[in-house]
Amino acid sequence: MNTSALDFDSPVHLRAVSAPGQPDVTPALEELYRGFEQELLVPLWAEIGDLMPVHPRSKALPHLWRWENLRKLAAQAGEIVPVGRGGERRAIALANPGLGGRPFATPTLWAAIQYLLPGEDAPEHRHTQHAFRFVIEGEGVWTVVDGDPVAMRRGDFLPQAGWNWHAHHNATREPMAWIDGLDIPFQYVIDAQFFELGRDAVSEAEKTTPERSRAERLWGHPGLRPVSAAGSAPGSPLLAYRWEHTNRALADQLALEAEGFAATVEPGHAAVRYTDPATGGDVLPTIRAEMHRVARGAETEPVRETGSSVFAVFDGSGTVTVGGKTWSVARGDLFVVPSWQPFSAKSEAGTTDSDSGALDLFRFSDSPVFEALRLSRTDAAR
Amino acid sequence: MNTSALDFDSPVHLRAVSAPGQPDVTPALEELYRGFEQELLVPLWAEIGDLMPVHPRSKALPHLWRWENLRKLAAQAGEIVPVGRGGERRAIALANPGLGGRPFATPTLWAAIQYLLPGEDAPEHRHTQHAFRFVIEGEGVWTVVDGDPVAMRRGDFLPQAGWNWHAHHNATREPMAWIDGLDIPFQYVIDAQFFELGRDAVSEAEKTTPERSRAERLWGHPGLRPVSAAGSAPGSPLLAYRWEHTNRALADQLALEAEGFAATVEPGHAAVRYTDPATGGDVLPTIRAEMHRVARGAETEPVRETGSSVFAVFDGSGTVTVGGKTWSVARGDLFVVPSWQPFSAKSEAGTTDSDSGALDLFRFSDSPVFEALRLSRTDAAR
Amino acid sequence: MNTSALDFDSPVHLRAVSAPGQPDVTPALEELYRGFEQELLVPLWAEIGDLMPVHPRSKALPHLWRWENLRKLAAQAGEIVPVGRGGERRAIALANPGLGGRPFATPTLWAAIQYLLPGEDAPEHRHTQHAFRFVIEGEGVWTVVDGDPVAMRRGDFLPQAGWNWHAHHNATREPMAWIDGLDIPFQYVIDAQFFELGRDAVSEAEKTTPERSRAERLWGHPGLRPVSAAGSAPGSPLLAYRWEHTNRALADQLALEAEGFAATVEPGHAAVRYTDPATGGDVLPTIRAEMHRVARGAETEPVRETGSSVFAVFDGSGTVTVGGKTWSVARGDLFVVPSWQPFSAKSEAGTTDSDSGALDLFRFSDSPVFEALRLSRTDAAR
Amino acid sequence: MNTSALDFDSPVHLRAVSAPGQPDVTPALEELYRGFEQELLVPLWAEIGDLMPVHPRSKALPHLWRWENLRKLAAQAGEIVPVGRGGERRAIALANPGLGGRPFATPTLWAAIQYLLPGEDAPEHRHTQHAFRFVIEGEGVWTVVDGDPVAMRRGDFLPQAGWNWHAHHNATREPMAWIDGLDIPFQYVIDAQFFELGRDAVSEAEKTTPERSRAERLWGHPGLRPVSAAGSAPGSPLLAYRWEHTNRALADQLALEAEGFAATVEPGHAAVRYTDPATGGDVLPTIRAEMHRVARGAETEPVRETGSSVFAVFDGSGTVTVGGKTWSVARGDLFVVPSWQPFSAKSEAGTTDSDSGALDLFRFSDSPVFEALRLSRTDAAR
Repeated sequence: MNTSALDFDSPVHLRAVSAPGQPDVTPALEELYRGFEQELLVPLWAEIGDLMPVHPRSKALPHLWRWENLRKLAAQAGEIVPVGRGGERRAIALANPGLGGRPFATPTLWAAIQYLLPGEDAPEHRHTQHAFRFVIEGEGVWTVVDGDPVAMRRGDFLPQAGWNWHAHHNATREPMAWIDGLDIPFQYVIDAQFFELGRDAVSEAEKTTPERSRAERLWGHPGLRPVSAAGSAPGSPLLAYRWEHTNRALADQLALEAEGFAATVEPGHAAVRYTDPATGGDVLPTIRAEMHRVARGAETEPVRETGSSVFAVFDGSGTVTVGGKTWSVARGDLFVVPSWQPFSAKSEAGTTDSDSGALDLFRFSDSPVFEALRLSRTDAAR
Repeated sequence: MNTSALDFDSPVHLRAVSAPGQPDVTPALEELYRGFEQELLVPLWAEIGDLMPVHPRSKALPHLWRWENLRKLAAQAGEIVPVGRGGERRAIALANPGLGGRPFATPTLWAAIQYLLPGEDAPEHRHTQHAFRFVIEGEGVWTVVDGDPVAMRRGDFLPQAGWNWHAHHNATREPMAWIDGLDIPFQYVIDAQFFELGRDAVSEAEKTTPERSRAERLWGHPGLRPVSAAGSAPGSPLLAYRWEHTNRALADQLALEAEGFAATVEPGHAAVRYTDPATGGDVLPTIRAEMHRVARGAETEPVRETGSSVFAVFDGSGTVTVGGKTWSVARGDLFVVPSWQPFSAKSEAGTTDSDSGALDLFRFSDSPVFEALRLSRTDAAR
Repeated sequence: MNTSALDFDSPVHLRAVSAPGQPDVTPALEELYRGFEQELLVPLWAEIGDLMPVHPRSKALPHLWRWENLRKLAAQAGEIVPVGRGGERRAIALANPGLGGRPFATPTLWAAIQYLLPGEDAPEHRHTQHAFRFVIEGEGVWTVVDGDPVAMRRGDFLPQAGWNWHAHHNATREPMAWIDGLDIPFQYVIDAQFFELGRDAVSEAEKTTPERSRAERLWGHPGLRPVSAAGSAPGSPLLAYRWEHTNRALADQLALEAEGFAATVEPGHAAVRYTDPATGGDVLPTIRAEMHRVARGAETEPVRETGSSVFAVFDGSGTVTVGGKTWSVARGDLFVVPSWQPFSAKSEAGTTDSDSGALDLFRFSDSPVFEALRLSRTDAAR
Repeated sequence: MNTSALDFDSPVHLRAVSAPGQPDVTPALEELYRGFEQELLVPLWAEIGDLMPVHPRSKALPHLWRWENLRKLAAQAGEIVPVGRGGERRAIALANPGLGGRPFATPTLWAAIQYLLPGEDAPEHRHTQHAFRFVIEGEGVWTVVDGDPVAMRRGDFLPQAGWNWHAHHNATREPMAWIDGLDIPFQYVIDAQFFELGRDAVSEAEKTTPERSRAERLWGHPGLRPVSAAGSAPGSPLLAYRWEHTNRALADQLALEAEGFAATVEPGHAAVRYTDPATGGDVLPTIRAEMHRVARGAETEPVRETGSSVFAVFDGSGTVTVGGKTWSVARGDLFVVPSWQPFSAKSEAGTTDSDSGALDLFRFSDSPVFEALRLSRTDAAR
């Protein structure tokens, strides 16, 4: 057996080491390992500590991206990178420092800032990856989903279930930036993804700008569904969740709490989940999305959960703690909570006064994957 | 064998008759039938035509009740029948003429007009029967559900899932009448019902009259759910579906149809279903509730379905056809569609002009029972 | 108002009575009641005690039918009542003494003895009513289900989900009797039933008598399903549950209990439920079927449940108690447990020694209806 | 901006290239990319071809491992690698050549050969990873699952849902080898895994060797479930699926096909799926397991599916084609079918005559993940 040749041919590289739980390093063991390499085999005993830890030890790291930096680089890209067929979108993705430079915010989630100049069109395509847009600031872009133009305004959440045609158009005289969330890493790693190109530009009729999309007119009435709808496709048929509703729901919860009724997650911590009105369940099959409000001066209990999350600071200021890291945060900042890392947030008066003093955090996570496969665990971490 | 004695003891009465498919009438057959009676037995061959028809042949009949008569009798009852413990409610139920004088609008559904005088309280109780209220006219009564006062106004739909405490209070200076729907006949026939008395009167605090109930503040935001809610009890946690939302949803559907988009059930026929926001499914486990709008001059296609429905004319005027019967209808009229009887409706300008010229029909049915047990069938009847 | 005419026309008959919770009997009340009758209305306050009891008070009564009497009358019917088109089946149904002489064992369940002479054919038909056969004694009849001949032998349970074609053929030289269970009363009262005639006789090929049906060859392997099967129709695709498997499962449970492991429902009380292998749920959408074994000398705790059951004594002897009634029972006896009536059973050595001394009780009930609609309640009754 | 320092600090490495769909390479673009690297950002346009392909293009490669080589290396490991706490198992995993030397057969599935010497104990532990054992040859090892000893024999499939305690013991005088399948890669990549050590050795009582496990005595009866079982934990409560049942089910399908009835997947291709008897669904939440039989001389149609599979040749010989690769296979050989790679198999007479001439293929896959998240697609590939 020519083991030296093996070192070039096989991607398997095993090194016998003296360690507790490991077999004694002997010539026989070395020969055995060369045999494993040749046959593309890896013994469990050499890897069990990494593969089967006592609890999740994500390679992803807690990390924070500052909105001002993202915004600045996106604007710079706007000047020199055209939007069009091939590149498809001027989207710039967060690359978690623990994930080897790949554009993965977490092992399952993609988060990006997307930027569109006045009059620009991002061409139509569709893909199995589930997606949403969330608007941190600005307005004026229309996403055309299967021919239905959907306006985007600050605070709006716009889900885009897989395999729907969609394109974007900036109808204003200002550039606009927003956050894209997708399950690209998850579908990439399990090899689920399909993609298809659509029209290069949307029609003029689709560039008109109704106040409400057709989806909202059909599905946006509380507790009501159209009898005409079959509604069996995966993902929400409601294409826009407007800030006015989200804000009111959060305010209602805090007011109910003040009146002495159960309504919040914990004292001073209101939260709503975006749901598919056809099922009451998560808005997308692989992505959960929520808005959390930490009232002025309130602080959430540290919690750790299986699955990973990306947070965007929508409004207010405060501090957030993820695992051993603590950051002061302000509008637009994005940060990542890897699986089983404790997370808590505290509202604090910032350098600029916000109306409410509350810290509003938009969150998305891969919880639906964990729940569908019955892998969820949650613990108080304090 | 003393057969004459049997005629007094046994509820089984068999008569041998000469008919196709029936055995020859002989003394031996007569003796056999006496034996059956004595042993409390009934042969299938004598009853199969009734028990196993080619399609549902409901004993319930199509029937119409006029609102003016109901309203008048309810007011008369208001003068002489007190509301209180024992009788519990001043509710007067529709008795389908085919169902033997029992207070069953259909074999599974109860429909009643309930009437409450100024300042009156209907005492608190709870029961496994699922219930709702729908307001044809007036306002000012508050239903207190598990301590949450819920206002009732024209066009509002107020579900009341089983086993929640509830009481009513008329806070105005006017009497008020509304429609009650329950699954009393269904739970009665299958022997499912439990009932418990609560407090004789609600507290003063519960008589305050918020614009929105706590249920609406928690669950009444489109596509959003409170993260704090477990939400596993049967039936909707949303206790009020307001007319402004229902009306807007119906108007949106007709407007979308006019713009050329799929939205309505059929041309000129908009419809919304009241749903449990925690599941997207029916608002109550045994009762489906919907609002239908037949646009000015439109007519629906005759359809027959398994299961029975009760309709209330909410607004407008027109004609409705159930099986072989056709009635001109106006606000508040109630009528019954038995299982597998074809139904259609036509909007017609009435003697008084309504704003829209549309015929608005509130409908409730036992469809969830049929769907849960996979017994649903629907056919176009023309 | 001509009230005397009403007495002829209206099925509603109201009598004003002096009673607690009832309004004072006055001429005004009498006039109001005449108005109700004319308009086909019934006030809740007059009926609430019957309609909304504190717990289920079934009109159905506990009752026992003796097998020897059933068998004798069935044989007598065999002599004088032909089987054929029109009457369809020589089935003789239990008529609960509380249910007005109708052929309803309980408000939802039909139970009958069916009898077929040597060489006789019961013609093919299908219906939406869900059905099963259970064999108390004898063998030799083949049920042909959608062209698949299924042998019937003592102890076998043979489900027949709605809308499958089926016919029976007695291939032996002996008459045979078995028990039929269906949801005829339930589908009758909710008006769900459809019926269709098939061929007058099955083909010669279908009269061959394989040991195992095709259904068993496809679906009768523990924990395995055919990859080829779509399997979305309601009800089990497995058409025969053989006694050898049922018996072994019950014996295994009692043996495990004797070894100190959890396996039985309670000490000395083994039970298996027949399930749809495609779902793990009940074998039929509206009917639950189980076999219970009460070991020699054991006694079950009284339990009351919502929903009604029919029991057939398959083997052994003992006493059973239903509500206030206690009967000694032996092979083939049938009895009824109405909703919320406490039930318990005790195994006792009979006049003839059985092998095991155990009391084997076949049970079927309407529990799936209660569970699907979330109306189930169970309580220990002691 | 000190970009040279960045090259050391950031895991993000972007190279501007001239290519269709990519922006022109200019100094401004280079500077933009340095900014992206500094901020841990990656533009979509640079990666879209890899991340969002037209259809799945798995990094995993079709690959075959020969049983004789696996068996020989496992025996060699038996001589020099002890089994015990720390290493936990003498399991040697397949490392797909496209997955960078990691012990992943596919991106989601782990497959290993495990080897246990006479008298050896693999110590008790539990983990959230779902697992199964499948026996290619030999017998005599007992897996103790939550105190229930389960015998392992050729052809048996033994599922092990997550978080059950388990240990192995070889009670014979011969070494034994079998195949382990787990979802280790999937739970690793999404960070779901928990692990806990149990007892170092099982008790003497647990080393006794019943013919049937307690699980089989409770759950191994076709179409029957114990009434005593709550049965809500994820994964099958049935811990052993015996070869005699699997073999009979496959033989039945081919016999039914020969008689002219629908039973097989396609001509000459029988297949059964191992199911959870409590749900009728997949035996494990994340893993599907099936046995396929390709009859003598038959060939399956090429099919491609989303999701990946591992196959083990259980018996017979033939050729299999995966993507562009074709291999002659014999007993024990293992091979991998990556997502969306066409697969077909052909039965061929081997060098040694098997009884049936059929090719029996055990298959496991990640299909439940795809189905739960509604990501499944299947296409005929010819």
